Amino acid sequence: MVTHLTEEIPRSVWYGWGDPYRARPLSASALEFLRRTLGLAGVEAIHPPTALADVRLSAPALDDSVLAELRDIVGPGHVSTDAAERILHAGGKSTPDLLRRRSGDALGAPDAVVYPGGSEEVGAVLALCVKRKVAVVPFGGGTSVVGGVEPLRGQFSGTLTLDLRRLDRLLHVDPASRTATFEAGIRGPAIEAALAPHGFTLGHFPQSHQEATLGGYVATRSAGQASTGYGRLDQLVKAAHLETPAGPFDAGSLAPGSAAGPKLLDVVLGSEGTLGVITQATVKVVPAPQAKVYGAWTFPTFEAGAEALRKLRHNGARGDMPHVCRLSDTDETASTFRLGGAKTGALSHYLAVRGQKTPALALFVWEGDAGQARARKRRSARILRQAGGIALGPLPGKSWEHGRFSGPYLRDELLTRGVYVETLETAATWGRLEDTYRSVRGAILSALQAKGAAAYVQTHISHVYSDGASLYFTFLAGLEEDGLAQNARVKAAASNAIVAAGATITHHHAVGLDHAPYLRAEIGDLGVQVLRSIKDTLDPEGIMNPGKLIPSPSSGTP
Amino acid sequence: MVTHLTEEIPRSVWYGWGDPYRARPLSASALEFLRRTLGLAGVEAIHPPTALADVRLSAPALDDSVLAELRDIVGPGHVSTDAAERILHAGGKSTPDLLRRRSGDALGAPDAVVYPGGSEEVGAVLALCVKRKVAVVPFGGGTSVVGGVEPLRGQFSGTLTLDLRRLDRLLHVDPASRTATFEAGIRGPAIEAALAPHGFTLGHFPQSHQEATLGGYVATRSAGQASTGYGRLDQLVKAAHLETPAGPFDAGSLAPGSAAGPKLLDVVLGSEGTLGVITQATVKVVPAPQAKVYGAWTFPTFEAGAEALRKLRHNGARGDMPHVCRLSDTDETASTFRLGGAKTGALSHYLAVRGQKTPALALFVWEGDAGQARARKRRSARILRQAGGIALGPLPGKSWEHGRFSGPYLRDELLTRGVYVETLETAATWGRLEDTYRSVRGAILSALQAKGAAAYVQTHISHVYSDGASLYFTFLAGLEEDGLAQNARVKAAASNAIVAAGATITHHHAVGLDHAPYLRAEIGDLGVQVLRSIKDTLDPEGIMNPGKLIPSPSSGTP
Repeated sequence: MVTHLTEEIPRSVWYGWGDPYRARPLSASALEFLRRTLGLAGVEAIHPPTALADVRLSAPALDDSVLAELRDIVGPGHVSTDAAERILHAGGKSTPDLLRRRSGDALGAPDAVVYPGGSEEVGAVLALCVKRKVAVVPFGGGTSVVGGVEPLRGQFSGTLTLDLRRLDRLLHVDPASRTATFEAGIRGPAIEAALAPHGFTLGHFPQSHQEATLGGYVATRSAGQASTGYGRLDQLVKAAHLETPAGPFDAGSLAPGSAAGPKLLDVVLGSEGTLGVITQATVKVVPAPQAKVYGAWTFPTFEAGAEALRKLRHNGARGDMPHVCRLSDTDETASTFRLGGAKTGALSHYLAVRGQKTPALALFVWEGDAGQARARKRRSARILRQAGGIALGPLPGKSWEHGRFSGPYLRDELLTRGVYVETLETAATWGRLEDTYRSVRGAILSALQAKGAAAYVQTHISHVYSDGASLYFTFLAGLEEDGLAQNARVKAAASNAIVAAGATITHHHAVGLDHAPYLRAEIGDLGVQVLRSIKDTLDPEGIMNPGKLIPSPSSGTP
Repeated sequence: MVTHLTEEIPRSVWYGWGDPYRARPLSASALEFLRRTLGLAGVEAIHPPTALADVRLSAPALDDSVLAELRDIVGPGHVSTDAAERILHAGGKSTPDLLRRRSGDALGAPDAVVYPGGSEEVGAVLALCVKRKVAVVPFGGGTSVVGGVEPLRGQFSGTLTLDLRRLDRLLHVDPASRTATFEAGIRGPAIEAALAPHGFTLGHFPQSHQEATLGGYVATRSAGQASTGYGRLDQLVKAAHLETPAGPFDAGSLAPGSAAGPKLLDVVLGSEGTLGVITQATVKVVPAPQAKVYGAWTFPTFEAGAEALRKLRHNGARGDMPHVCRLSDTDETASTFRLGGAKTGALSHYLAVRGQKTPALALFVWEGDAGQARARKRRSARILRQAGGIALGPLPGKSWEHGRFSGPYLRDELLTRGVYVETLETAATWGRLEDTYRSVRGAILSALQAKGAAAYVQTHISHVYSDGASLYFTFLAGLEEDGLAQNARVKAAASNAIVAAGATITHHHAVGLDHAPYLRAEIGDLGVQVLRSIKDTLDPEGIMNPGKLIPSPSSGTP
């Protein structure tokens, strides 16, 4: 279904998220919540972003002969050293990224931005960059929140960001085999728009959907809001074409199953631009759903809700699992209800009367044939009720869906009002989920409060597996004078708690720069050596996205 | 469900498949079929295997100091240079393997067989083998049909086969997360027996189930007869522990989903003993089914049957797909019916009257809750009927299941009677399935008939995916004087046809020695270089299973 949810938006603004015209101002109740919860007397808009003209930028380091050769390869209109273009490619969309750029610091911007028109041009640019010792950062939607597109020069003469927006075509659909091949620079809404006439959907809707690209999805091993039903992207990709400094590399196979040795596609998935540039990918597609059926239940505690999700996954009939499946902890539920106004006030009262004074809200969407989706909801309702759930009807789910991509816009206004806000995520087995939740939440809260300020953490589960679930933390506090130090302190505390819990350092945000120091704890010294050996084979000079993903030889967990 | 199907059998006989006491003699109708179809006048038992005492074996090449050190590591009772033990580990179970051993040739046997008791002993053996330049072949059930466990000495001083049968324990079950951790030497039936008290099954039943081990499943990226329902093994494994010459290596994660870079577990899966020895693995498990519901339908042609399977997969309700899903071509169906005697004679007549003179038989098993499984069959029946299917009831499916692991026993008697028989498999997208079927089948038939003899090929689909299906070919002809040359001719013709069709060189038999020359066509030069770089990192001296999986630097497609 192509709806307003999957429509194209203009390219993102340089200092924040997406298209600023889509941002809605914070409501009076949200401001009141911030004042009360965070003890911020004013919450005034006193920290606007620096004017674009005042942003600090280093002089472009690439010499004219390199720029001339680049123009020869991709055409003169597709190489830019303009300040605005460089600033737009200076990094991703993590809170520290935004803090830096809002304060006028784009000193890390690339020396040039190149817009290739196809795989062969990408290959030629890489060959030139090997020869001229230029670092290359592949750039899709630019929505990385882990420093994945930050241009690091390292030992090279300059950095160049390769923006793949011109590689935006659907190349082939095989309806009988239900596969589609795209150029990798195509964005989420355009994928859906291209598949719609064929009756198909990719079913991949991360929060960055409106900006992110298929190549970015592949490079970061993405998961979407409906991945409980449609599968993570690594389950949807069949093959990918890379241009690497060592030459073109086709990973994966059209065969539906194969025992032909290690699956090298799984080396490309999650490679985050460190091995080469993904220029095409073939994905599995499924019929676009004819209907969506919404449901919401509340549970007495987050733990009871998590146990209900586990039972739904384990005891529900095969195929009954909803496509979207989210559970908020009691804090996130409280803030959802609070922002809902009078209607949810009455609801809170009703739930309290029924014994749920601090409820945890679970939202579900079943997709597909209308009759089948309704039957699935009906059968699932029995399990959820037995697990202590109180049914709320379809409205909370519809309301969530309406705002499903708009959350990150709020951050821009919060930062303007002097509120620090960031998110991070992990995943753990059912057996370890509660401990992981408590320890990571506790670590974030302690780190936020370290200087005595009030702080707030809310958490949800958004991906439900047979063997466990994801945990997604959103946290706020007053912005300290050194916001970058504040962020580093909180991020380190959370990451160390995740490592100590034996959970994964990232469920779907990827590794990038920010998680690289923690990767060794997850994959071991030999795992790092294996990654390094693969990189040395495909990118012997090390020009591809330096500093990302692979921890440096000396680094242990900080 | 633990049944007679999943019970332990003794270790395999040296000259053939499994436990010879389980073999049943060829029926009179089978012999008559061979006489008529292959034009073999006698089909007499005139080629029995050589007596064990007469099998040719080279003198063990490992010197006494190496053997003494091995005994120090694993205990004196766990190192063997006995002829019988060496012959049992001389190779796998492909037809050329059996032809060699039956003719008295075990010259390729390892110099010693070592039975380690745990991961640390495996690690210590590898360290010794690096120091003393000894090649190591990991050995699970020994059922490779692609030369995967053939001891090749290469540049080393000797070869040692590491038989993992002592690593046979269930180490841990996490019922809430539905995972189980096993030692890797545990065999298929023992996995099921260990899980049964917990109410779980792994659901993995390759034809080698009664002998093959979990480590072998992982190392070869195995698929089982019920993988359409339970998933391929690569979808069931969460983590694996390897001992490598570079040290212990833990691949995979307990987290249910992760975006922490490339998935290195997928480098271990399918590594076929070339990177190290898998000593433990954690797998996802599911509740053992309470019921099995059987169904069979015939279709006017193989193509019509394949189209029916595709429709079942694509148009059936989510979760309705049967766990077992097999479609025989008209040749395989004819031989199934012919061997069924009078009852199937009447059935053939009935089908002919209804317009199916040369039908293609499809078998299905739905597993799970009895009511749900019956409902799934009922809904599926509508799709199959609309696709031209005639329902036959549960008996053909039950009959198939009764003999599901016994097919390979027939080969021993066929070889004794001078009949050449072998199998091979591939997989292709729905869009290319029919072309792949025709060209590979045609290539096998032409190669078999190259010397003027009669030949027979039958084919089935046994794994049904959203994007395509597997193709499994079984073929027979009179055994030529040089059976090895006959086999090489047919195998090369089939493999070249598979490569030309753009299908995979192996759907579930793995690469081993026999498919290694064709891997380059499938993964490319850079893919081979990536594999080589991973091997150089984990096994810098190259002692692990030399000659397998990774094509030699010079080799192209033969």
